[in-house]
Amino acid sequence: MDPNAKKTALRMVPYGIYVLTAKAPDGTVAAATVNWVTQTAFTPPPPLVVAGIKTDSGAYATTRKAGAFALNMLGKGQQTVAFTFFKPTVASEGKLSGEPYRDGSTGAPVLLNAPACVECKVVEVIERGDHHIVLGEVVDAHLTKLPEGRPDAAILEMKDLGEKTFYGG
Amino acid sequence: MDPNAKKTALRMVPYGIYVLTAKAPDGTVAAATVNWVTQTAFTPPPPLVVAGIKTDSGAYATTRKAGAFALNMLGKGQQTVAFTFFKPTVASEGKLSGEPYRDGSTGAPVLLNAPACVECKVVEVIERGDHHIVLGEVVDAHLTKLPEGRPDAAILEMKDLGEKTFYGG
Repeated sequence: MDPNAKKTALRMVPYGIYVLTAKAPDGTVAAATVNWVTQTAFTPPPPLVVAGIKTDSGAYATTRKAGAFALNMLGKGQQTVAFTFFKPTVASEGKLSGEPYRDGSTGAPVLLNAPACVECKVVEVIERGDHHIVLGEVVDAHLTKLPEGRPDAAILEMKDLGEKTFYGG
Repeated sequence: MDPNAKKTALRMVPYGIYVLTAKAPDGTVAAATVNWVTQTAFTPPPPLVVAGIKTDSGAYATTRKAGAFALNMLGKGQQTVAFTFFKPTVASEGKLSGEPYRDGSTGAPVLLNAPACVECKVVEVIERGDHHIVLGEVVDAHLTKLPEGRPDAAILEMKDLGEKTFYGG
């Protein structure tokens, strides 16, 4: 396999930017910027989504303990929020690394500044590779800002994070 | 759960457009336009990807029989190819619904007009929902056209297929 062809082909996959959050039963909250996300089924209602989450991250550990997670969709212009959650999360004064939130119905933090969010119950974790595939059933959804035009034109994308920023390949 | 919030939030996920192809041991070939694709791990080398594939499709049946599949990335402007493979595939005169191809190293058809392609060995199928999650290990990759600029700016996207075209939500 030509490594450059592999890298370039895989980097053609377009990605949105999400802050994955979770709250463990002991109250620990975690958050991390992720991009390996796709819906995988319409039914059974509710729909299913997967996220590839780095196994050595706090977000992974907390998601497993919680049995639930939220995907907070970031909006165009929210690069700063994306970069904030590349770093370890600091929970203080009711904020996550300075970002205000409320508890969602699953307990997962719903970021108040994110335009949309889906909360998921973990139905299976496929333990393969350096990131595991967390399969979630969408159990709640929040919209704080109705996108003008297409919803998929309103999300912050990998390509908005910098000319040479990629996560994939 | 507010159904409109759910639909809009899930439709914020940006998708590229791929023609998934496979060739069964009996020589049957199948192809279908898909969009629910993401990488899920960098390692073990090679990387892993998932595709959500409709269980009642020929592409799904053939992928299962083949134990392998190819994701042919479509390029900007290839809307016609995307729409072609929304319909059942016609294999004749060495073409797939009129599109020329060659056999990849896994046997899966590699479309000659697609700018890039990854071939995957199926390592697991997670049987949940109206689409199953086919987990593939990338075993080969082809690049017929080096993207100018970012690779993820060169792929045909869901939003390029029409103002009201969505597959998700």
